[in-house]
This record gives sequence, C-alpha cells and structure tokens, in this order.
Amino acid sequence: MVFVSRNARIGESVSMVGDVAILGNSVIGRNTMLLGTIIVGFPKRSSLKGVVTNFEELSSASSGAVIGEACVIRGGTTIYEDVRIGNRVQTGHNVLIRERTMIGDGVVVGTGTIIDGGVVVGDGTSIQSGVYIPIGARIGKNVFLGPRVVITNDKYPPSSRLVETVIEDNAVIGANAVLVAGVRVGEGAVVAAGAVVTKDVPPRAVVAGVPARIIGDRDSYELKKRLYERAGK
Amino acid sequence: MVFVSRNARIGESVSMVGDVAILGNSVIGRNTMLLGTIIVGFPKRSSLKGVVTNFEELSSASSGAVIGEACVIRGGTTIYEDVRIGNRVQTGHNVLIRERTMIGDGVVVGTGTIIDGGVVVGDGTSIQSGVYIPIGARIGKNVFLGPRVVITNDKYPPSSRLVETVIEDNAVIGANAVLVAGVRVGEGAVVAAGAVVTKDVPPRAVVAGVPARIIGDRDSYELKKRLYERAGK
Amino acid sequence: MVFVSRNARIGESVSMVGDVAILGNSVIGRNTMLLGTIIVGFPKRSSLKGVVTNFEELSSASSGAVIGEACVIRGGTTIYEDVRIGNRVQTGHNVLIRERTMIGDGVVVGTGTIIDGGVVVGDGTSIQSGVYIPIGARIGKNVFLGPRVVITNDKYPPSSRLVETVIEDNAVIGANAVLVAGVRVGEGAVVAAGAVVTKDVPPRAVVAGVPARIIGDRDSYELKKRLYERAGK
Repeated sequence: MVFVSRNARIGESVSMVGDVAILGNSVIGRNTMLLGTIIVGFPKRSSLKGVVTNFEELSSASSGAVIGEACVIRGGTTIYEDVRIGNRVQTGHNVLIRERTMIGDGVVVGTGTIIDGGVVVGDGTSIQSGVYIPIGARIGKNVFLGPRVVITNDKYPPSSRLVETVIEDNAVIGANAVLVAGVRVGEGAVVAAGAVVTKDVPPRAVVAGVPARIIGDRDSYELKKRLYERAGK
Repeated sequence: MVFVSRNARIGESVSMVGDVAILGNSVIGRNTMLLGTIIVGFPKRSSLKGVVTNFEELSSASSGAVIGEACVIRGGTTIYEDVRIGNRVQTGHNVLIRERTMIGDGVVVGTGTIIDGGVVVGDGTSIQSGVYIPIGARIGKNVFLGPRVVITNDKYPPSSRLVETVIEDNAVIGANAVLVAGVRVGEGAVVAAGAVVTKDVPPRAVVAGVPARIIGDRDSYELKKRLYERAGK
Repeated sequence: MVFVSRNARIGESVSMVGDVAILGNSVIGRNTMLLGTIIVGFPKRSSLKGVVTNFEELSSASSGAVIGEACVIRGGTTIYEDVRIGNRVQTGHNVLIRERTMIGDGVVVGTGTIIDGGVVVGDGTSIQSGVYIPIGARIGKNVFLGPRVVITNDKYPPSSRLVETVIEDNAVIGANAVLVAGVRVGEGAVVAAGAVVTKDVPPRAVVAGVPARIIGDRDSYELKKRLYERAGK
C-alpha cells in the first residue's frame, strides 16, 4: 500500500507500485518510478523521538528527501531524510542511501549498494552492485565504481576521527578494490580489480595489487581498451 | 498481501506468505514456498512503458518467470521476467535474479546474492551468500561459489564489450575471490579465498594469491580435505 | 500491516511501523523500535512442514526469537527463530540473523550484514555494513568488524566439516579482510583492510597482506591512532 505524506509533493506521471512510503516534505519529480517496497525520507536515529506506530507518525519525524525527474527506484530501497537525488537516476534493488547525501544527474546506483551518509556523487557516475561508500566520501563526475568496491573513512578503526576519501572525475575503480581511509584517487586514474589502495593515486595512473602500486597509465589503458573492444567485433 | 496475475499458473500445494507478487505469465511449480516480500516476473527496464500505479499494470508489462517444483524462495527477493528456475532450488533472503537467467535443478542461491542477467547456472551448484555474478557468466554443474565471490565481465571498464566468464563443472571458488572478466576456470579447479584470478585456470589446478598463481592440484586438495574431515571426527 | 503472534510478548512503548511480523513465542523488550518490513522468529527450513498460506500458519511453525529493550531494528531484516538479542542493539537495513545466534548488549549490526546461524557475538561489538559471519563463528566483546569483512568456516570447501572461527575481545578487523576457516584472531589483534588471514593471529599483533603477515603490534597501532586523532583536531 502506498503512503504519501500530506506535506510531500509528487510530480506528474509518477509511478508507485507496492509498499511505497513517501515521508515528511519529500519531493518526487515527474515521470519517476518507485517500484517495490521503498521508503523515501526515512528519519535518521536522532530524529526518532518517542514511540511511532504508523507511517503518519514516522513521517512527522522526517524532513523528507528530494528525488528528481525520470528516476527509477527499485524495491528494498531506503532513502533517508536530507538526501537530494538528481534527474534520470536509476537505483537497483535493496539500496541504502543515508542522510545528507547528494547524488547528481544520470547516476546509476547498483543493487545492494550502501551509501552511508554525507556523501557527494557527481553527475554521470556509475556505481555497480554491492558497493560500500562511507560517511564523508566525495566521488566526482563520470566515475566508474565496479561491483563490490569498498571505501573506508577511518585509518585506525575504531577511532574518533573520520576522514574524507576522494575519487576525482573520470576515475575507474575495479571490482572488490578497497580504498583505505583518506586516500585520493586522482582524475582519470584506474584501480585494478582486487587492489588495496593505501596511498594517493596520481591522476591518470593505473595501480594494482596489495598494496596497490603503479603499473601503467590511463593512455595505455585506453589503447588496450580500444584493441579489446575492436577484438570483440 | 498476495497478488497473482490472472495469466499466472500456480501449482498444487504452493505456499505464499507476505507481500508476494506473481506477475505476467509466471509459472510456479507445486510444493514451492514463497515466504516474505517477493516479486516474480519483475519487468526489465525496457518493458516498462508509461505510468504504472498497481501490480495489475506492472503485471501486464511482464512476460513472467518460471519457478519449478519444491523450491523455497525467501523474502526480499526479486526474480525478473524471462528467468527459468529448476526444481528443488533454494534461495536465501534479499536475492536478485535478473532477466534471461537459467538456473538448474537443486541449486542453492545464498542471501544477498546478485545474478545480473543472461546467466546460466548448472544443476547442483551451490552459491553462497553475497556472491556477485554479472551478465553473461556461465557456471557449470556442481560448482561451489564461496561467500562473496565476485565475477566481472568487462576487462577494461567501462567499455562497450562485455565478455563471458566461465566456471566449469565441479570447480570451487573460495570466499571473496575475484574472477576478472573473460577468464575460464577449468573443470574441478580450486581458487583459494581472497585470490584475484587474472588468467585462465587449468582444469583441476589449485590457485591462490593476488594475482592468482598455481600452488597445487585438485588431487592433493582432496587428500588434504579427507585428512581434515577425518581429524574432525 | 503489523502481525503479532498471539503467543508473543510485546513490552511497553514498542514502536512498529510497516510490515512487521512477530512470530511464535517471540519476546520484544520495551522501548524497542521495529521500522520497516521485518520478520522476527522466521522458521528455519526444518521447521517448515506442509503448506503455509498466512502469517498465522507461519507463526505456528516458529519457536520465536527474543529481542531486548531499547533496540532499533530496521527494514528488510529477518531474524530467525531461536535467536537471542540483548538490550540496546541496533541493526541497519536488510540484515539477516539466522537461528541459534546470541547477540550481546549494545551490539551494532550494519546494513546488509549476514549472520548465518549458531553465532555468538559479545557485548559492545560493532559489526559494520555488509559483513558475512558463517555458522559457528565466535566473536568476543568490543570487537570491531569493518565493512564487508568475510569469515569462513570450511577449510576445504565443500567439505563435511565446519570449524569454529574465533575473534577474541577487542580485536579489530579491517574492511574486506577475509578470515579463513578455523583461524583464531587473538585478544586485541588488528587485521588490516584487505588482508587474507590464513593462520592464527597472536594477541595484540597487527597483520596485513595476502596472506597476512605480522607487521606490528597493538601498542604502536594505538600510538599512531592517537597521533592521527590529534592531527584531526
């Protein structure tokens, strides 16, 4: 059953099927589809005060989230309050996007991906399935995060200091790679699948291994990619 | 609440509890259990045209999926249209199986596993929890995929060419191992936990490390296994 | 819609919003919040006999689970029968906790984490997002498991012998690290992000790499942590 907060604003031609709950002052842009069990505007822990026994009460604890136009949001997904999602964003199933996150236009967020709050994701970035992005990560435009990439934000866990981990525009992070807290992956750099990145990666460098070391540059990567693509034709 | 498409065929003694939705021309074999929030026959993106506001409309966009007899499908699971699942298949919770996937008899699919479409899984294969299988992977019979194995299909992401990654019959892939796009793991080969496989693994070889190298063969692995099993008695 | 078994005991000031199902003889302590699609007391496979067509019937197959006071359980979560959860426990979204698991007071269980049954987790332990804990693991008090840690229980999969993997009190396991079946991580030891632990880690040792080797001790780790925390002020 669909629940829509009386303070929410729902655009034209929005599709909602299943147990969709739109809480607080949420805004859903026109032509957006919400398909499955989805909560938009889920209140963060500190917003939950006292007993709540229905969506009306949960809604009144929420400041809401904003989802742009022509998005597709799939079932099992929870989007917290104070999240802002651009236009033409697609999410897979069972996604979590926590509070104070900003997601640009045309972003893809794969199934099972967790964005743990306070994250910025630039336009056109593609986040594959099962990625973990911690509080405070900053991800540029047109970045590619392969399946099950994990980013961290605490260099000596569990500590009292969380740091920013930064991925600059056009970078490519391979499947199951780990970015240790505080590293900066430079513009256009490539991290191979399975690498553990323990220090900054210079722009357009290609790194691999545990710990990751430089093995090439983006230009030669692009050359190999073109040959690989051609061989497939 | 259960929704069953008027075009669906539900066998005898099927259990359905929770928000189960059976869409399109789906077929559910007898004695199968669907327990929790489950969608069978979820339409792929290109099948979604125009606004949908209830399961009836979503159902009419779906060509349905086929699930065999005596299966157990658990909550949080979405099975796309054009999926064919054999008999006696068990899935855990929060599983995703996308379009054009064929799953054999007696397969186990662990909780949180993602099968991203166009995948073939042979009879008797056991897929543990949190595994990621990309478009076009081919997985043989009686294969064992440990928890959180990740398989990829793009050698130079993001490229325009996706390749097949193949795991032959009886192979064993250890926990959190990564198979880089296009590799072939031979019949009966073993990949150790945490390995990153960057080239083909010969039949019955045992490989480990980053990148993975041959460290033994299946016969000695089986010998060690027997000693290990005996020591536990 | 909320379903509560007639045999369940619900404490004062419990919050339930969404499709919450409390099965069998489950007990929910006072001030606990269940927010989203949640099943408490889900029956294990062997408890499911015959056809079940509604929560009443599913409930009668369940012996129930116990959740303490002042917990927060979030949507997409399934807690099996014969689970015992202490007080002030928080779980994220899409969590699975299988049968015969005991979780202490003040434990955090992150989004997407899977606890596969027969597991003991000590008081004050923090389990981050996407962690996999197999049958029979024993995790001490005040342990920190970083995001996407994976623990295994079969040294030569798939074998007939599952072993205990043990993490002693105060240990720290970094993101995406793998603990191979049967290892013991000693009191206060630290495993670096991305490490693959193939043998026992002595108390207060720091290990890293694939396979993991000793690179330092907890005292120097704590010293570095203090400098790191100070640098952030």
